[in-house]
Amino acid sequence: MAVEAIDINCDMGEGFGAWQLRETDDEALIKLISSANIATGFHAGDPSLMDRTVRMAAEHGVGVGAHPGYRDLQGFGRRRIDGSTAELVNDIVYQVGAIREFAKRHGAHLQHVKPHGALYMELAGNAEFSDAFVRYMRAVQPETAIFCMGVSATYEIAKAAGQPVIREFYADRDYGDDGAIVFTRRVGRLDPEAVAEKVVKACLNGTVTTVTGKEVDVEFESICFHSDTLGSKEIVEAMRRRLKESGVRVVPVSKLLGR
Amino acid sequence: MAVEAIDINCDMGEGFGAWQLRETDDEALIKLISSANIATGFHAGDPSLMDRTVRMAAEHGVGVGAHPGYRDLQGFGRRRIDGSTAELVNDIVYQVGAIREFAKRHGAHLQHVKPHGALYMELAGNAEFSDAFVRYMRAVQPETAIFCMGVSATYEIAKAAGQPVIREFYADRDYGDDGAIVFTRRVGRLDPEAVAEKVVKACLNGTVTTVTGKEVDVEFESICFHSDTLGSKEIVEAMRRRLKESGVRVVPVSKLLGR
Amino acid sequence: MAVEAIDINCDMGEGFGAWQLRETDDEALIKLISSANIATGFHAGDPSLMDRTVRMAAEHGVGVGAHPGYRDLQGFGRRRIDGSTAELVNDIVYQVGAIREFAKRHGAHLQHVKPHGALYMELAGNAEFSDAFVRYMRAVQPETAIFCMGVSATYEIAKAAGQPVIREFYADRDYGDDGAIVFTRRVGRLDPEAVAEKVVKACLNGTVTTVTGKEVDVEFESICFHSDTLGSKEIVEAMRRRLKESGVRVVPVSKLLGR
Amino acid sequence: MAVEAIDINCDMGEGFGAWQLRETDDEALIKLISSANIATGFHAGDPSLMDRTVRMAAEHGVGVGAHPGYRDLQGFGRRRIDGSTAELVNDIVYQVGAIREFAKRHGAHLQHVKPHGALYMELAGNAEFSDAFVRYMRAVQPETAIFCMGVSATYEIAKAAGQPVIREFYADRDYGDDGAIVFTRRVGRLDPEAVAEKVVKACLNGTVTTVTGKEVDVEFESICFHSDTLGSKEIVEAMRRRLKESGVRVVPVSKLLGR
Repeated sequence: MAVEAIDINCDMGEGFGAWQLRETDDEALIKLISSANIATGFHAGDPSLMDRTVRMAAEHGVGVGAHPGYRDLQGFGRRRIDGSTAELVNDIVYQVGAIREFAKRHGAHLQHVKPHGALYMELAGNAEFSDAFVRYMRAVQPETAIFCMGVSATYEIAKAAGQPVIREFYADRDYGDDGAIVFTRRVGRLDPEAVAEKVVKACLNGTVTTVTGKEVDVEFESICFHSDTLGSKEIVEAMRRRLKESGVRVVPVSKLLGR
Repeated sequence: MAVEAIDINCDMGEGFGAWQLRETDDEALIKLISSANIATGFHAGDPSLMDRTVRMAAEHGVGVGAHPGYRDLQGFGRRRIDGSTAELVNDIVYQVGAIREFAKRHGAHLQHVKPHGALYMELAGNAEFSDAFVRYMRAVQPETAIFCMGVSATYEIAKAAGQPVIREFYADRDYGDDGAIVFTRRVGRLDPEAVAEKVVKACLNGTVTTVTGKEVDVEFESICFHSDTLGSKEIVEAMRRRLKESGVRVVPVSKLLGR
Repeated sequence: MAVEAIDINCDMGEGFGAWQLRETDDEALIKLISSANIATGFHAGDPSLMDRTVRMAAEHGVGVGAHPGYRDLQGFGRRRIDGSTAELVNDIVYQVGAIREFAKRHGAHLQHVKPHGALYMELAGNAEFSDAFVRYMRAVQPETAIFCMGVSATYEIAKAAGQPVIREFYADRDYGDDGAIVFTRRVGRLDPEAVAEKVVKACLNGTVTTVTGKEVDVEFESICFHSDTLGSKEIVEAMRRRLKESGVRVVPVSKLLGR
Repeated sequence: MAVEAIDINCDMGEGFGAWQLRETDDEALIKLISSANIATGFHAGDPSLMDRTVRMAAEHGVGVGAHPGYRDLQGFGRRRIDGSTAELVNDIVYQVGAIREFAKRHGAHLQHVKPHGALYMELAGNAEFSDAFVRYMRAVQPETAIFCMGVSATYEIAKAAGQPVIREFYADRDYGDDGAIVFTRRVGRLDPEAVAEKVVKACLNGTVTTVTGKEVDVEFESICFHSDTLGSKEIVEAMRRRLKESGVRVVPVSKLLGR
């Protein structure tokens, strides 16, 4: 695998009311990404912040994505909550509908859906949940892409069902030997050059070094980083510079889906 | 005024999680109405209940309406909350989008939007808020009806803007001399026959007796009652019987809008 | 074991704002129990309901207990939420403090603390969490009893630490072969006489029949049933009648603790 | 009036979960104040943050205060919510109890109660609410001080009832001709020296210049500033320097109450 064109996605709008995450600067980051995962109110994101963030993404030509999470403001959606498959899918339907309305309001369409945090991990590992989620997407929004890990039930099921799907490489998360990321509620400060190096290697060689030191294959169409990772702006700037030097272009998801 | 055909609307899906209002029975009421105002999560209504309620309305051919409220589970949306016009409209956009997604999922469309409780009263009396709300409706959903009181800023502004609008007569609320309802957080038990009598008189004569004993004119296309009014099922049954005897037909909103 | 005197405890105040669980009738049940586990706001229970319920318990001489749960109104605290031990204990401290203030206001003291639903089960099985919880209790309220299962980390740790502890027998829950209850989000309707029979057998013989048909030993000082179990009033009435016939007295927890 | 000794109070712990207000730095501010108003979970403040903030205050010998607000995370408690007097007092009882438990846990006692934002203003202007609040304080915590404006129903009623009361001067808010502050959801950046000058003048002369340019009398025992006012650290540092130069000492509330 040698990737020539990729998407860069980042979580956005992760405040609530008067609050922001200390290390985020959406106004700066929006210029450096091609897809925005916009928090939809359950783990972060109030309606007025969603409105502002969707408008900002639309103005910068950045793909608008729904970023639904567990109903857990206190834990920022990074704590798993037990729930039946039907409940969890209904929680997603609710949040996706909410942000789609803001997209309409600002003349944009919903480009993708990417669950957040612990819900993303639950979806990745839970085939029944992935199946019910993909069936909802097929029925209501067959053109909207699902963002997920390549190593996940979500990917296999979305692919088989014919739903557009974008696999992600996680710039600021560690990988296990199974090719899946190691979920964490919070990472420490990372060296931007080391992260950029890891990303370029993944694009050119198609591999990543795991937490045990192994090399495992990774396939992906988008690179993800988190706005609340310390120094996220420096990280994405280093990534973009190194990607450009390596001949990898950043393009919209529509291009990657052959539209 | 002599009304020959009317809509009957009622709030639905006003539970949350394991909870229901003690006196509501949506399964029984859905058969007796033509429009359902479905709670959208801020004052009542969780996603799984919304999913069930929208599906139930769709199955019975009852018009699906969004029933957005203040973010106030504790006060059931019957307490006014200060907020800027932009905040309040964004809260509505969020909730309307959420329920529209459930409507799509069940093969229905969103028939109308009717704010709940204290938010409905705030909208009625606040021209700036009504104006911003109607502009959102014009831009995103020009075919969706707004339900409101005839005596309200909402009605005047929606009418002038060309948005479909349905005026309501409140079967189980008292009227003031200004022709607007007297807002209350909770009413006591009412006599179904007296309520039915009041409704028939409003349909045939176009008047209602106010709290001070005056007769004032009322114009409307829909009759509203509340599922949590004690004995709501008996009330709507009495209404329907008396309306039928008086030659007033219950029809879908689409008919009333000449579609 | 042949129990001569027991406490009967039940969850109370499990509404929120305008809502109640359909099958609960706290006014009737309060006369039939000796200890009330009062919901403290995270899974159920708003401040005004807590105030009413604490006052009602105080008036009837029923022991006031804190019933803290996961922060999960939507799931009624019956869904497990991941969280660090420190977070979970802090959530309990917050809720216990809140209800203790209402107890003071009504001239009562806090008799016991009993976590709710999924949090109760998590505490039972998680020794680190039980240890941190018991240390908080020792430090701040060494006289307040902990209610828990006999087969639990909570019991072992509280007992060893010298904190007053009351073991429960669950009238309306099934038992596994390990002597612990089988956790469920909702049970169906039960036969009051069968439940009463099970309780009397547990008191007189000290055993219960498990879901696989085995007989296992149970030790306890209190009998628990749930107000939202269908027919809860009939269940507790049958229990009390059969207990009386069998010579088992219902007494306050203070008596059971030898005070 | 020439004040020789004053308290300095500031809101603290105004985050929620992963979030903080962008401009606050509680670790720096705690060293510069004598009383902390600690958010109690309804408008800000989750249990783990409350635990940390109470411990921090206790370690620095800063008076621990409850800072209850409206149940309004989205609006940060700066939006008024209609509610009955009983509901509002119960909401306060709940929150005060919660923080008192954390104080006990860290070997501190609750020094004062000061409602937050719009609830503070509501209490100031609503005699029925102030009366019910003071009666609760008299009954449950007769030694705990109430913080309020000198021009308020709260002050008059608390004083008459014999409850300890501390009047505040607002360093970073404007005054109206009635001697009460002009409530605002957010102030802009202020000049620290100008604020310090205003505070010193109030201490030495007992007057403040209102928004219309008049001089009105102010009486107070404590100076309040907000941690989320831009440059709050510079403001309090300038205040302390100028107060010291002017011979006004910063002392604990207990001293001001003659204990």
